[in-house]
Amino acid sequence: MSNENDRHAVGIATLGAITGGTGTAVVDGLKDMAPDLAEWIISFSYGDVLSRPGLDLRSRQFATVAALTAMGTAMPQLKVHIHGALNVGCKAAEIVEVILQMTVFAGFPATINALNVAREVFRERGVDVDR
Amino acid sequence: MSNENDRHAVGIATLGAITGGTGTAVVDGLKDMAPDLAEWIISFSYGDVLSRPGLDLRSRQFATVAALTAMGTAMPQLKVHIHGALNVGCKAAEIVEVILQMTVFAGFPATINALNVAREVFRERGVDVDR
Amino acid sequence: MSNENDRHAVGIATLGAITGGTGTAVVDGLKDMAPDLAEWIISFSYGDVLSRPGLDLRSRQFATVAALTAMGTAMPQLKVHIHGALNVGCKAAEIVEVILQMTVFAGFPATINALNVAREVFRERGVDVDR
Amino acid sequence: MSNENDRHAVGIATLGAITGGTGTAVVDGLKDMAPDLAEWIISFSYGDVLSRPGLDLRSRQFATVAALTAMGTAMPQLKVHIHGALNVGCKAAEIVEVILQMTVFAGFPATINALNVAREVFRERGVDVDR
Amino acid sequence: MSNENDRHAVGIATLGAITGGTGTAVVDGLKDMAPDLAEWIISFSYGDVLSRPGLDLRSRQFATVAALTAMGTAMPQLKVHIHGALNVGCKAAEIVEVILQMTVFAGFPATINALNVAREVFRERGVDVDR
Amino acid sequence: MSNENDRHAVGIATLGAITGGTGTAVVDGLKDMAPDLAEWIISFSYGDVLSRPGLDLRSRQFATVAALTAMGTAMPQLKVHIHGALNVGCKAAEIVEVILQMTVFAGFPATINALNVAREVFRERGVDVDR
Repeated sequence: MSNENDRHAVGIATLGAITGGTGTAVVDGLKDMAPDLAEWIISFSYGDVLSRPGLDLRSRQFATVAALTAMGTAMPQLKVHIHGALNVGCKAAEIVEVILQMTVFAGFPATINALNVAREVFRERGVDVDR
Repeated sequence: MSNENDRHAVGIATLGAITGGTGTAVVDGLKDMAPDLAEWIISFSYGDVLSRPGLDLRSRQFATVAALTAMGTAMPQLKVHIHGALNVGCKAAEIVEVILQMTVFAGFPATINALNVAREVFRERGVDVDR
Repeated sequence: MSNENDRHAVGIATLGAITGGTGTAVVDGLKDMAPDLAEWIISFSYGDVLSRPGLDLRSRQFATVAALTAMGTAMPQLKVHIHGALNVGCKAAEIVEVILQMTVFAGFPATINALNVAREVFRERGVDVDR
Repeated sequence: MSNENDRHAVGIATLGAITGGTGTAVVDGLKDMAPDLAEWIISFSYGDVLSRPGLDLRSRQFATVAALTAMGTAMPQLKVHIHGALNVGCKAAEIVEVILQMTVFAGFPATINALNVAREVFRERGVDVDR
Repeated sequence: MSNENDRHAVGIATLGAITGGTGTAVVDGLKDMAPDLAEWIISFSYGDVLSRPGLDLRSRQFATVAALTAMGTAMPQLKVHIHGALNVGCKAAEIVEVILQMTVFAGFPATINALNVAREVFRERGVDVDR
Repeated sequence: MSNENDRHAVGIATLGAITGGTGTAVVDGLKDMAPDLAEWIISFSYGDVLSRPGLDLRSRQFATVAALTAMGTAMPQLKVHIHGALNVGCKAAEIVEVILQMTVFAGFPATINALNVAREVFRERGVDVDR
């Protein structure tokens, strides 16, 4: 069983790998009101879960983008994780594919709204959806 | 623009590749009440969407499993698509990883309920969650 | 402003018109644990809301079937209200149309699961989906 | 089986009938990132589904407004479809009835938030909620 | 059975106790388009339901904050009810606890988004999250 | 920062206090497929979150019952946590109050379905809803 320092260190590393500055800013912004939540995001979400070895980070980000698109209640987090998907090597066109696929499972509004979030991210980074 | 026969043929092929007999049975079971829905599943869901070349079928099934786990309202379809994930080469342990990851985004109940569906599928097929 | 006796009487009448015996049984079944909830269903849901004059009962039942199909979390109530739709003169084929339409807004799983509820109702009543 | 050109043409006609300029603008806005999604909206959502003969357009728009109100995750699409409801002959007061009815099935927040979207639409068009 | 005047009076009193001016403003803002909805909020939501004697107002507001956080589709209402929780004597730190608890049941995005709403409320009122 | 052994021990104690045998059985049942999930439930859900000192266990269980009722996608977990609410001293009638309150925020179907789960729990334990 890993100790607390390990969980935190692994979480910081994975948070950095996936979200870069964006995720760190979110976590820092929570420290005033809920420092333990900030720590849980690091140690649990990124340290325990997203850093697990059984699945590559690209597949993990596709899964996250799919889920947040389908849920439709977490647009700020979808934005963070579309950034994250690009950060770990997903191509813009692949991210669009995952979002488009959600028309089948969650309907067109979910897809359209998520695509608008993706557009913002791609514009901020100057990324084209090459095909 | 592909014609209708193409869409149907591509859909049948992709439906077979992903869901095997399970999905075909679902589609056939809809023909009495809603033959057009059965056809949409083939031509639109599998013909237009899930057969698109820009993302491999393994990644697509991870995305579907993630979304249906997070939504929590589509257990029969989650079962079909866990079968589908295994059919296109996802390992049982990888499917479990995607489901576990949803604790972060959709909470523990969503993950626990989806894992119970996965257990059923793995038992039916005699698959172990090797790590 | 209508008085309490009116609300209750109007609610009983509308509950009967829409749900027939099915809805009354649901309401009666709640009286042991939550008699006030049973009364709210009568006086508020059916007395205040569903009996309002500004929209015909057929349109109201289409709206209810659409919403419960899209939500995907209320299958027992969807069953009651598909019965209700038939009771107020919606045709089976029209109910199927509403459910099929939800593929666009809520995805295919929502539609397939609702259609299976409709099939049960139609079988219980010996109704065909004539087109 | 209708061919692709038919589906597209029927879709364009139904999109125009329901959404007028609003829907066309949404579809056009998607063409840069996801031209196939734009085409699916035309050929599948409007061509295959919303143009079906078994239910009148007024009833279809009531169903859509009900579903999007209840879901609570698709406010931009709710706005488009309240416009659409007015375009196909639903009265403002009838649309309000559908939204109010959702208090029963999805709770008061869903209704209040949807009503605020309706207010915007009615103001843009100078429509009164006559009773 | 209480009469209509009682329900309205009890509702007005409970609405005032929980939401203060914020809730009254929401109700007043609905009177142009849907005066009956405004009345239902008073007579049903606050008169029949939230004023019931079997549970104290603090526990009721914790329950409401929990539900709206988990649903993720009712941010304006969450804001009203975080104000309401403070109004009936919940401490800011307790409200934060309820929101943090939702990570377990609804995931981290639901908690983070609700916490940002709480931050707004606390800032407007100059409330500190003392521990 | 507490160490891993502490988190586990606190989690086991809180899991026992809230869920008694029911929760332990759920956790044990997950160990075959996802031993880490079982550990997260103990160390994170019960060790980090539900054991926090800032809110009493009765209020926490009211919050959980409210959220799971409103979500409508987690009936097995709702059952566990209605047991849990009784275990930490909530009265049956208070639990019913929380569930009834959800009519306002999530609609009648959510309340009715949750009440049926509560009925099962109360029957299993021979508990009356005294008022």
